[in-house]
Amino acid sequence: MSTTLDERTARVAAAVRSAEASFAVLSGYDAVFYATGMLVSQELGVPFVAGGPDLAVVSPEGETWLVVPRMRAGAARASRADHVVEYGDDTLGALAPATAYAAAVRGLLDGAPGEALGGAGRVLVQPDSLTAPVAELLRERAHRLVDATDALRTARKVKTAEELAALRRCAGLTSAAQRRAREVALPGRTELEAFADVRAVWDGDVGHRCEVTGDFVSGVERTAAVVGWATDRVLREGDPVIADLAPRLDGYWGDSAATFVLGEPTARLRAMHAAVRGALDAGLTALRPGVTAGALDDVVRAALARDGYAYPHHTGHSVGAASHEFPTIAPGVDVPLEEGMVVLLEPGAYDPEVGGVRLEWMVRVGADGAEVMSDFALDL
Amino acid sequence: MSTTLDERTARVAAAVRSAEASFAVLSGYDAVFYATGMLVSQELGVPFVAGGPDLAVVSPEGETWLVVPRMRAGAARASRADHVVEYGDDTLGALAPATAYAAAVRGLLDGAPGEALGGAGRVLVQPDSLTAPVAELLRERAHRLVDATDALRTARKVKTAEELAALRRCAGLTSAAQRRAREVALPGRTELEAFADVRAVWDGDVGHRCEVTGDFVSGVERTAAVVGWATDRVLREGDPVIADLAPRLDGYWGDSAATFVLGEPTARLRAMHAAVRGALDAGLTALRPGVTAGALDDVVRAALARDGYAYPHHTGHSVGAASHEFPTIAPGVDVPLEEGMVVLLEPGAYDPEVGGVRLEWMVRVGADGAEVMSDFALDL
Repeated sequence: MSTTLDERTARVAAAVRSAEASFAVLSGYDAVFYATGMLVSQELGVPFVAGGPDLAVVSPEGETWLVVPRMRAGAARASRADHVVEYGDDTLGALAPATAYAAAVRGLLDGAPGEALGGAGRVLVQPDSLTAPVAELLRERAHRLVDATDALRTARKVKTAEELAALRRCAGLTSAAQRRAREVALPGRTELEAFADVRAVWDGDVGHRCEVTGDFVSGVERTAAVVGWATDRVLREGDPVIADLAPRLDGYWGDSAATFVLGEPTARLRAMHAAVRGALDAGLTALRPGVTAGALDDVVRAALARDGYAYPHHTGHSVGAASHEFPTIAPGVDVPLEEGMVVLLEPGAYDPEVGGVRLEWMVRVGADGAEVMSDFALDL
Repeated sequence: MSTTLDERTARVAAAVRSAEASFAVLSGYDAVFYATGMLVSQELGVPFVAGGPDLAVVSPEGETWLVVPRMRAGAARASRADHVVEYGDDTLGALAPATAYAAAVRGLLDGAPGEALGGAGRVLVQPDSLTAPVAELLRERAHRLVDATDALRTARKVKTAEELAALRRCAGLTSAAQRRAREVALPGRTELEAFADVRAVWDGDVGHRCEVTGDFVSGVERTAAVVGWATDRVLREGDPVIADLAPRLDGYWGDSAATFVLGEPTARLRAMHAAVRGALDAGLTALRPGVTAGALDDVVRAALARDGYAYPHHTGHSVGAASHEFPTIAPGVDVPLEEGMVVLLEPGAYDPEVGGVRLEWMVRVGADGAEVMSDFALDL
């Protein structure tokens, strides 16, 4: 066990203690990464050699175990985890080896690496990803399962220094990608071709294939439809383009959105863009510690409504080891912003006759208000 | 409910009846797709608006329900499913809404769409992906959970006519991508740059971003390490390249591998390549209905061993709605091949001083033996 705990691991351990739990069993990829630093791609979900999601077990003192298929043992050993329990065979004969997975968990719970996890008691778990057999193994040992969701949200909502550094790098690379998008989205090219050039910005910088979410849509119809990944639609003069670019870089997610036009925007799109820009500015002005996420949402929506527009999605969200973290900036979310949170603000407007506009910047909640981390133009 | 069931749905329903189960609750993305045809990208796993994996419920008669977050309601309605239960809110305020997910499942189990799912009894489930709260809801209703893994493997192992057509298309597009790989992997370019051009082949054909697994490695060290995704390594004259290309196209996976050299191969790599080619040919000759997967594995490994080589992975695997399906062609797998299975054979050889070679073709198990579906050169 490390003598100095990483702040993230320490916060999870503190959550375990606060819950008076014996330990936590984390099964969400982002929580596993947060607690241990194990970095594996999520592009293909649970791999075919796995019998369930990778698990991170965290003791009240911050001692950590990972349960991973053999194929991921290297990534696990390269992490901060104190112990790695691997399972599965070398020749890949067993598909989805649920039995080997359960046996690995059983061995861990029954004290294979010591007595650390012995004793019946509360166990923090993630109900949206913990699989039934693991829950069963815990219950058989008289553990009582407690939903970790709120505790993890509280632990993770203010970013550590390491996280802020990682997120600044994400903001920088998404900004570079946004600048590139304007250069490569040209009439006659497909969305996919332009998107491939955008992807190359962060893949090339990081040096490997990065996961990516977001949207890349062009033309009136597709931008008005709010979301969508790049397709073989051919870009045309006059098209609006929404580039909502969100890559995962070294375990942290960046996010960003700009809207631009190939050529001359229509007057109605200009008006829409100005309104969205005004709403974003209203949000940046209102954002500060103590303002609730719901109140901030109200400010941005109200600013846009004054110009006659609305959007059918959240105003924004926190970001970190997951692309969308707590709190969401959405109606009724009664959670005060705190200094050191990192959030996205992303108001938009969409009209089937005009097209869509969305503008999104990444912002640190500073003591005195918004500290914009994004560095790309929002011009139409 | 459709009057004529899709053969895939019908097979899952037959599995439910064979197990004397009241219904099946499927939670693996490939099983959900198989049973209902709902096609969503898996690139980012369970989306942030979801409280757990999408679920497909299948009755003994083949009536189907999908449980999906609202964001995926469109994909669900475009599927073959008879009923769609959507959950979650429009403004995306609730992250990972486990409560809404559980409520949707509870509503379904308690007969919201009729009495079809009433009555205690056996329920087929997938233990590697069913989450604990859903298992709990089933148990509270006195259902007994039965592992569906074997029943689904049996149902899925021989491909339907629709699947074979889809897999032929996958074989064709992976072959086109393999041909492209040789054109674009040039000295001075990075693996990532070459891989982006390869990706464009299938993305462009299908018209949207496709999921992809496999490997793209160059140089002696990286090819000898067996697996790896494209990086910013710069290709050099004389490099071996292993292009193991496996895209998901319209819900079905293609797979393929070729090894080639940028320029003149060394004598040792030539010898290694000839041996692997010989092993693949031995496998193609031996492959026929009735031969067990384990016996086929033996044949291929033995052929290679005669030349002094070995590989630390399976000899191959079935393919379909998942990239790796049952049976795997690996030591000791005592499952006879059957006419109409589609498998990959992928022997390889790896040496830190020489580099690595892997050759992989997609093959239908025909009545008289191997029917190669791949159409690309295996030359070094």
